[in-house]
Formats: sequence, C-alpha cells, structure tokens
Amino acid sequence: MNDLGARARRASRQLANAPTEQKNNALQAAAKSVRASVNAILEANAKDVAKGEQDGMSKAFLDRLTLDNDRIEAIASGLDAIVALADPVGGVMASWDRPNGLNIERVRTPLGVIGVIYESRPNVTADAGALCLKAGNASILRGGSDSYHSSRAIHACLVSGLQAAGLPVDSIQVVPTTDRAAVGEMLKGLGGNVDVIVPRGGKGLVGRVQSEARVPVFSHLEGICHLYVDKAADLEKAKAIVVNAKMRRTGICGSAETLLIDRAVAETSGKAVLRALSDAGCAIRGTEEIIALLPAATLANEEDWSTEYLDTIISAKMVDGVAEAIDHIATYGSSHTESIITEDLEVATQFLNEVDSAIVMHNASTQFADGGEFGMGAEIGIATGRMHARGPVGLEQLTSFKYRVHGTGQIRP
Amino acid sequence: MNDLGARARRASRQLANAPTEQKNNALQAAAKSVRASVNAILEANAKDVAKGEQDGMSKAFLDRLTLDNDRIEAIASGLDAIVALADPVGGVMASWDRPNGLNIERVRTPLGVIGVIYESRPNVTADAGALCLKAGNASILRGGSDSYHSSRAIHACLVSGLQAAGLPVDSIQVVPTTDRAAVGEMLKGLGGNVDVIVPRGGKGLVGRVQSEARVPVFSHLEGICHLYVDKAADLEKAKAIVVNAKMRRTGICGSAETLLIDRAVAETSGKAVLRALSDAGCAIRGTEEIIALLPAATLANEEDWSTEYLDTIISAKMVDGVAEAIDHIATYGSSHTESIITEDLEVATQFLNEVDSAIVMHNASTQFADGGEFGMGAEIGIATGRMHARGPVGLEQLTSFKYRVHGTGQIRP
Repeated sequence: MNDLGARARRASRQLANAPTEQKNNALQAAAKSVRASVNAILEANAKDVAKGEQDGMSKAFLDRLTLDNDRIEAIASGLDAIVALADPVGGVMASWDRPNGLNIERVRTPLGVIGVIYESRPNVTADAGALCLKAGNASILRGGSDSYHSSRAIHACLVSGLQAAGLPVDSIQVVPTTDRAAVGEMLKGLGGNVDVIVPRGGKGLVGRVQSEARVPVFSHLEGICHLYVDKAADLEKAKAIVVNAKMRRTGICGSAETLLIDRAVAETSGKAVLRALSDAGCAIRGTEEIIALLPAATLANEEDWSTEYLDTIISAKMVDGVAEAIDHIATYGSSHTESIITEDLEVATQFLNEVDSAIVMHNASTQFADGGEFGMGAEIGIATGRMHARGPVGLEQLTSFKYRVHGTGQIRP
Repeated sequence: MNDLGARARRASRQLANAPTEQKNNALQAAAKSVRASVNAILEANAKDVAKGEQDGMSKAFLDRLTLDNDRIEAIASGLDAIVALADPVGGVMASWDRPNGLNIERVRTPLGVIGVIYESRPNVTADAGALCLKAGNASILRGGSDSYHSSRAIHACLVSGLQAAGLPVDSIQVVPTTDRAAVGEMLKGLGGNVDVIVPRGGKGLVGRVQSEARVPVFSHLEGICHLYVDKAADLEKAKAIVVNAKMRRTGICGSAETLLIDRAVAETSGKAVLRALSDAGCAIRGTEEIIALLPAATLANEEDWSTEYLDTIISAKMVDGVAEAIDHIATYGSSHTESIITEDLEVATQFLNEVDSAIVMHNASTQFADGGEFGMGAEIGIATGRMHARGPVGLEQLTSFKYRVHGTGQIRP
C-alpha cells in the first residue's frame, strides 16, 4: 500500500505542472473509452450485482450499484463536463506590490495526493478521479468491495485516457484489494503520501474516517438542516420553500430535517406551513404546541432534534424569534445548511451572520446546498469542517496556493 | 484541561460575532495595562530568569527569556499594531449571481479555537493571543515552563483588556500548569475544542507537535532555503542577494542554507559569489568543484544537503541549469522558501512554477519570507503544509469562511 502512495506522489509532481490541455485530453480520451467500453463495464457490473443479490443486499443498495446504458453515458458526459470547467491551477488569487518594489502573487497550486473512500456507487470512480486530475492532483480511490469489478472496469477507461494524453498512469489509482485493512492504511496516510482523505458514503463510513484518519479529511457526517419560519415570513414563499426543502428529495444531505416556527405566527404561517408539509405526505414529529396546530403530528423526543431522517419525516417546534432559532441550531445542528424565511432584512442578516454553518440561506430552499447549484460545476462532496474547504468541495477547494515573489535585486535591510 | 477547551469554545462563539471596535478596545486596553504593569512583569520575569540561571541555561536561552523596559514597550506597541490591522472577519471574498437569481457570497469567519504551544519567549503570549483575538478566535496558550511567571504576568494584562471591553475572559487562556502532559492533551484537541495547533519554537517542539497532534497544525519543521544562481544571473544582484539571504540574520527560518550554482558560470559568477560569502565570514561546505573554486571551502557530505545550519555556514554545489536545481530542491528542500537569481525571465518562470515551496522568489533575498515583509502586518508563524494556510500565517490565514445565499423565494426544481 505504501508503494501505491509513493507512486501517487511521483505522479502528482508531474501532474502539478501538466498544462490544462493535456489534462483535458486525458479526460476526453477517458470519456471516449467509457463509451467504447459499455459492454465490458456492464459485464463487470453484472458480476457485482449478482454477488449483491446473493448476499441479500437491499433493493436501494442494488439500485445504487446497478449500471445501465444511460448511467454509463452519464459517467462519460460527467467527464466531458469536467473538461469544460476552468482549470484552477496557476490562477492568481491576489497580487500586490510592496514599498520596496517587490511584487507578491498568491497563486493556486494542486494539493498533492487525494484519497477517496466510497461505497457502492461505481460512478464515483470516474467523478472523483477526474475532478482530482483536473485540479492537478493524483488520487487513490478505494471503492466498496461490492462494486469492485465495476470500479475496476471504469478505472481501466481512465487509465487509457491518461495513457493517450501522455500523463502518468499512477495519476489515478484504485486500491487493488477489497481487504478492509487497506482503508486503515489509507487513513494513516500511506507514509506521508496522502494529503487529504475524502469519504463519500453513509454515516458509518464517514464516522470511521473522521475518528481514525491521521491526515486531513473533507467531509460532513450528516446534514441536519434547519428551516426557520420567522414572524415576518411571506406565507407563500414559506410554504413553497419548506415543502421543497424537505420533500423534493429526502435522501440528500441538503434536505431539511427540522422546522423552527416563530411562536408569534404559530396560528397563521405556522399552521399553514405544517398543513402544506402534511398535505405533501410528510410525517411531523413535534412538540405539544405543534400537535395542537396539527393533530396528525406525533410527539417528538429529545433525540429527534439531532436526527437526520433522510426520509419523509420532519421534526418541528416553536421558538421565540430568531435568537432562539440560532441557539437551537448551535445546539443541535451539524453545521451544514440552514435557511431563514423572512421579509425582515435585519432579522435575516442576524441569522446569516450568527449561524455558524457552512451554508446559510435567506428565502431559499436548503436543497440548493450543492456544488452544481453553486455554479462550481461539480463537487467531490460537502465539507462541514472549518479547515481549508467548507461547503461544496469543487475544483478550487481541491487546490492549495503558494507565493510567487518578483524582485529586481531586493535585499532585506 | 477539557474544561479549558469547553470554556474556549464558548468564548469563541461570542467572539465570532464581536464587532471590530470591541476587539480593538480589548487590545488597546491590554496595551495600556502592559505599560502600567512594567514593574509587575519585570518582577515575574526576574523569577523565571533566576530559575533559568540556577538550571544552568545557555546565554542565548536567557537572552530570549529576559525582558527589559524596551522589550515590554515592544510588547505593548505590538498590540497597538494589531489594532491597526484590518479585521478579516466578515470580509466578502467572492460574490456571484446564479441564473435563478440566487446571490452567493463567500465570507470570512473565524476558525474557532487556536492552541499555541511555544518555548521561552514570553512576548509570544501577547502576540499570539492578540492575533487570534483580532481574527475572532479564542486561544489557549501554552508557553514554556521556563517563562511561566512572565507569561502569566503578560496574560493578566490581556485579561484586563478583555474585561475592559466586555469580552469573555476565556477568549485568551494560558494553561495553568507547567505539567508536560498538558501539551499532550492539547495535541489531542481537548475533546474536540481545539481547531488548530500552532507550535512556535525549535525543531524538537515542532516535530513532537507534528507527529502527535490529532488536530490540524500550522507549522514548519525547518527552513532549508535554497538560492540558485543561474547562468543568466546579474553578478552584482547575485552577490548582494546571496550574502544578504545567508548572512543578514542566520538564525531565522528564511535564511539560506544551500547555494546552487549553474555550472555554466562556475568560474565567473560562481567564484565571485563564493568569495563574497567567504569575505562576509561564511563557512562553505561544498563539493570538489566548489573547493576547486574556493580552497577555503570544506567538503560537504550527504547530510549537509538537508541541514538547517541556522549559523554562518552554507552548503554549495554546481548544477546543470534550472532543471537540476529544481530537482535538488524537490529532493532536499523543506518546502519553505527558495530564490532564483537570473535575468532570463523564461528560466525564472520555470523555477517559480515548478518549485513546490510555500514561497518562491525571483531576484530577491529569502530573508523576505516574513509576514511583515509580505505586508500582512503580523504573523503567528510560517506554514509549509499545503492545507489551509501556507507561507506566513497572518490574520487572514487564521480565518475560515462560509457561504451566505440570498434568495427571494427560490426552490430547487
């Protein structure tokens, strides 16, 4: 495994100075190879699916695992989309002159080697490998053992793209074993050869990575996203946003899990919003006050306030204005995404400033918490830590920087 | 100790939303308190110095430890200087509009709680605590046991400043014990209550922190800074820069430790630069080729290429052009600061792009590797890692960011 790391490090040195065109050529050739290898990928995937069925995996699991022509085309067009994104490497982030005539530039550089640990979705192999490559980073990918054959088949296409473009084949490596100990070694950093780990998967995987990793991690453990309906909320906006934030897709990290209602408008906006949710098919777990407004609601317990349902369920309670909403979020939130619905700009500003989450929103659905929706093109995940990357982790967040100092013979007095 | 962390975390929540004026008031009041407490600080310092003498500490050590009126005034004016710096918190780093009308802002926020571990210089107590405070962070300071009384006396002034401004006294805490185990607990993160550790001191301290810390670290282990004199170097610039980079102050991390000379100009620029160094009192450890040019040089061994002398010694060798210089730096460097001396812009560009160090320079002395010289005002240290902070760590590098999303009722399709 440490040899894998050393090879990635060597490849990363070459990649760091690869021109944009060469990286794009590799991605385009990889997309072409994916399209030409549909049958081989489907065959490899069939092996994984058969094993999953044998092992009695759930229907949802098998759905995430199964590839078809459309999904394979989506993988190829995902690669094309990354070609279209601007290359962050070499971009000048700031430039300034000093009184002594020195010009100082802060310029983007790759991070180095990125380890990605994921579960059953085989498309992550292409998405993650390609994003890392475009930002000039080598990657070491460790997919779930359940998608081993599918990942290897997709990886073969990436390698053929690298070869076609004359880039080192070690730029994107997959861990050549399904041994669980390999994950442990990656988390230790492969002898200093992994700069950051990105886990993509459920709470079990992310929790293990967060507690065991000896290298930095970009991740979120869960998205307990809050909606706060303020007394100055516009009712139509409130209903639309609350229903969308909870119900559009319940399985994503940006879906809302807790609804906070300003007690001042309990009987009006509060009741209407709860009804709209209930009518949309959402189960509500609330306090006594909530049940008084919507008898269909059931009583929430303490655990509900820190539960990520990822389902058609929401927890709900009343608060006395924005300050209590902010306190509730500080106590129970996961620092992911929260939204306030109000027409009062002052209250909105307080919420946006004081809530310490990666993403804070005003009059918008929390389901916009997504790199694509932010205009970043593609993301490798969402980070809730405060170091280096926060929020959607796109190409820019996969870079570091250095200082270039331009002199004309300056010496320090 | 975990209680110390929990108190810092609570203070950090208040600090995150403290207005600039309030933070400045605290720093100004602290400076005033330092000036009013000269006698108390000198008295405390005398205890530390007496103990240091008793323990037979070196002269250099006692010099770093000893305070006098001038040094105490420097501490106070250092606080004033931080008042004058722009507050990074709340600054909008980027703002853009999406086709659906959402406006997205990326805005600076504090990092949270910063642990600073340092050695005998008592002034770090004020410098580090004040920088953290200005960037909205709580800090936990752990000075050397040798400067315990001095640090406590200075800390008392900081606390009186916090009180005068109505900020939580736990915003800046010193570890109330000289027990070495306390450092170990800080490195484990005090129950999730330390977001980053900054070690300030020698290689022993930094090495321990880097290998034991379970939280992110901003640090450099050593500064093995390189100078490369290219065949297109201007001889006068080369002599001035090389002598300044090595000899101005030999004990700082930005002083040059290795000189690489383009073999094409060995007899001309090479010889002249070596003579200039030798005339300035520098000992040269070189290859046979170097000794042939300057008989006073002694033979370098393999270890010299990775040695940070911090003294009037430099290692020197010939290389075949910029590519070999870049290779040498990649092999032996510490990713701190390197400088090329040349009039050939193309060669300079290659060096600036391909050398993977926090700071790369063209025709300038490596001794400019300093937050003050970069115009950052003050720095808590220099970082050679690639995560979050790199190069001088000033106020901006002590911040994180979040996204503010301004909507008008948008829901995600």
